[in-house]
Amino acid sequence: MLDMDNEAFMEQLEELVERKRWPELRDILVQLEPADIAQIMDDLPEDRLPLLYRLLPKELAAEVFVEMEGSQQELLIKSFSDTELKEVLDELYVDDTVDIVEEMPANVVKRILQHADPETRKSINEILKYPEDSAGSIMTTEFVDLKKDMTVEAAIKRIRRTGMDKETINICYVTDPNRKLLGIVSIRTLLLSDEEDIIEDIMDPNVVSVNTLEDKEDVAQDFNRYGFIALPVVDTENRLVGIVTFDDAMGVMEEEATEDIEKMAAILPTDKPYLRSGVLETVKSRIPWLLLLMLSATLSGIVINRFEDSLAAYSVLIGFIPMLTGTGGNSGSQSSVAVIRGLSLNEIDFSDLPAVVWKESRVAVVCGVILACANFVKLLVVDRWLMGNEEVTFVIAMVICLTLVCTVFCAKVVGCTLPLLAEKLGLDPAVMASPFITTIVDVLSLLIYFTFATLLLGL
Amino acid sequence: MLDMDNEAFMEQLEELVERKRWPELRDILVQLEPADIAQIMDDLPEDRLPLLYRLLPKELAAEVFVEMEGSQQELLIKSFSDTELKEVLDELYVDDTVDIVEEMPANVVKRILQHADPETRKSINEILKYPEDSAGSIMTTEFVDLKKDMTVEAAIKRIRRTGMDKETINICYVTDPNRKLLGIVSIRTLLLSDEEDIIEDIMDPNVVSVNTLEDKEDVAQDFNRYGFIALPVVDTENRLVGIVTFDDAMGVMEEEATEDIEKMAAILPTDKPYLRSGVLETVKSRIPWLLLLMLSATLSGIVINRFEDSLAAYSVLIGFIPMLTGTGGNSGSQSSVAVIRGLSLNEIDFSDLPAVVWKESRVAVVCGVILACANFVKLLVVDRWLMGNEEVTFVIAMVICLTLVCTVFCAKVVGCTLPLLAEKLGLDPAVMASPFITTIVDVLSLLIYFTFATLLLGL
Repeated sequence: MLDMDNEAFMEQLEELVERKRWPELRDILVQLEPADIAQIMDDLPEDRLPLLYRLLPKELAAEVFVEMEGSQQELLIKSFSDTELKEVLDELYVDDTVDIVEEMPANVVKRILQHADPETRKSINEILKYPEDSAGSIMTTEFVDLKKDMTVEAAIKRIRRTGMDKETINICYVTDPNRKLLGIVSIRTLLLSDEEDIIEDIMDPNVVSVNTLEDKEDVAQDFNRYGFIALPVVDTENRLVGIVTFDDAMGVMEEEATEDIEKMAAILPTDKPYLRSGVLETVKSRIPWLLLLMLSATLSGIVINRFEDSLAAYSVLIGFIPMLTGTGGNSGSQSSVAVIRGLSLNEIDFSDLPAVVWKESRVAVVCGVILACANFVKLLVVDRWLMGNEEVTFVIAMVICLTLVCTVFCAKVVGCTLPLLAEKLGLDPAVMASPFITTIVDVLSLLIYFTFATLLLGL
Repeated sequence: MLDMDNEAFMEQLEELVERKRWPELRDILVQLEPADIAQIMDDLPEDRLPLLYRLLPKELAAEVFVEMEGSQQELLIKSFSDTELKEVLDELYVDDTVDIVEEMPANVVKRILQHADPETRKSINEILKYPEDSAGSIMTTEFVDLKKDMTVEAAIKRIRRTGMDKETINICYVTDPNRKLLGIVSIRTLLLSDEEDIIEDIMDPNVVSVNTLEDKEDVAQDFNRYGFIALPVVDTENRLVGIVTFDDAMGVMEEEATEDIEKMAAILPTDKPYLRSGVLETVKSRIPWLLLLMLSATLSGIVINRFEDSLAAYSVLIGFIPMLTGTGGNSGSQSSVAVIRGLSLNEIDFSDLPAVVWKESRVAVVCGVILACANFVKLLVVDRWLMGNEEVTFVIAMVICLTLVCTVFCAKVVGCTLPLLAEKLGLDPAVMASPFITTIVDVLSLLIYFTFATLLLGL
């Protein structure tokens, strides 16, 4: 792999660019992977881009183009002559073209569609019809289809003739005259069979397929579950309309994991790499939750104000508020995050609610008791005995430890229930993560704290 | 895809098991994917497992075996005769066998190694030598290797002869007599070339490979970056020792995302699905961080106790503590999570520290000012004017809003710096996420709060 941190290498390239040593540059670039070349082009001055790009051989150029950032692609398309644009488009797979079309402004899209060949244009328009995040929107229409009465020899001939333009030839799809999907056969099976074998006899008729409208996240999960190289996408009448390949599924998996992580940290999902998104963009993705959570924290304030007078009498209680709300928040977010991840990975669903709550309750009791004991010892031995803090009495320690047990219990039960409820209601469970739970648990833990204080200290 | 939520289907299967209708059961099972069959076997009574498993045809049986939980595999191995065990082992790929060996108790491992054929045993022992989480530990040694002076015809013949036992034939590896990796050639290139072409002329000599000791997480990132089906694994002398396939990489990606998410929620990573881990196991993964964070929250308590007397004079200040620490914590965790994710995806590294801090500082100022303004209006309009809370004076509002701006700034700078420092020090950046940041930010925000209160209110 190219070590992109290798500054010496980048400096060498930059020098070659400055000194206009194009043939040498070309010789270096063609040895690299498309993704790496795209990153290099990204890091070089923009005005050099079209020139540098034209150094690449046609096929590699198209592969590099796919890997570039939208803004760079736009810049290049604008610099292309009509013939150049047509050449690049001819080399691209349909799903990649669609990805590009989706990011470009209207005038660029128009130019792309004008120069795509009629069949590609039809495919692009078809894929664009599918809702964002659906299997249809990420599929490609370029797959190898075979007929069930072909011999292996005829099938291999067909692959040799048409395979060049297909995204993958590793899995071939057997369809009937109405394009209904009958089975799949891998290139490995084809190669390991006799030339006279009939496709129908060697194909696997038990095909896992996905519907065009299926969520792309579920499609990615299927890939991970079954280890497929490609999955066929069918319409409601089981007609094969496209395939999704594993590399697209990997992209989706990573994207979804990032989105989940962002939501759990109260960030609205963005689809740009960290350093590429502008300050205002970042602010926009962060400020809504911050505002909402800040205002909802007012509730905690109200609870505290209610008990202001009692707190004035036992001011030692105030110092333990951050520890209690913090521990409650952490306990709750542990449960919510575990459940949210289980939901994303399809390990659990709403019907598991009783099992989940039962498990979390037992975990909560054990955790709560351990934390309370640790705290009890700390309060009486460290605070009272060693530090000589006379305000920390046995009763105060009891209030704090009882609060801990109850808070951890409530936090864990709330933490595991809310994501499941969200899922049931069709909301995104991930937003029920840490920050949201924390705000609720803050209020709960304060209420529990002051209740025990009132009961045991007679406030 | 099999809908596992389909209870009717599962009930039908259970009934067939109870009524011992083995042939019917077999006919249903063989239509399913291995992962689905494994899950069904998981859900059925354990004593039926060996019987049910023996229904499956040999090849499918091995594929199902790989997908099972460790405990089920152990149960099955114990029920196998020596011949049966040998049959299953012969069908397994080496990397899958290693995965199984790693999970089994010593006596079972001994039995497996006894019954594996000598070459497999050698490979298993070799793979077991590599450190956990390294590329070597997840690779398989079963790949197609070709020589550079072969013709395409000879290569295809070789694949036909040996391909059955290889994990993938989609990419073939060209090596010299010393097993040095010279290039790769895809099955597609082979099929689309003339039979007389020489491998050396059609192979791609610019191969991305990974070292045996490379972290498996980085390997998974390479798959995602380059979209490869398989990556060759070489030793320090560039000798080809194995390959990693995309399906293993997908598993690693998902595992790592789960681990990161767990660490960010202060959970020690577990590798079992949510409902499969026992209560004590779950407690063990959660209690260490809870204890640590609880005890470190003592710091906040100390800060508050320092200012106890002043707080008694201005008790209205107490009610805003949860809002201030909460907002600080959320701001900090947003930054830390964004940076941690950027690090996992190799979008940023330690050298980007200045750029990251500069970006977060600007985001912090904008966020802080917006939050402060919103709060100022809320305090004076809602709290003072509408609710008639006379204690909320203009100066108090100023204290709170200035605290907000400074807290958000500190939180974001700390939040983005700590994960980068952790990475630099070779620690795991993910543990620098929300809970850890929150604890630090709690203390910071209280210090800032009381400093402003002292300055403006003259405490």
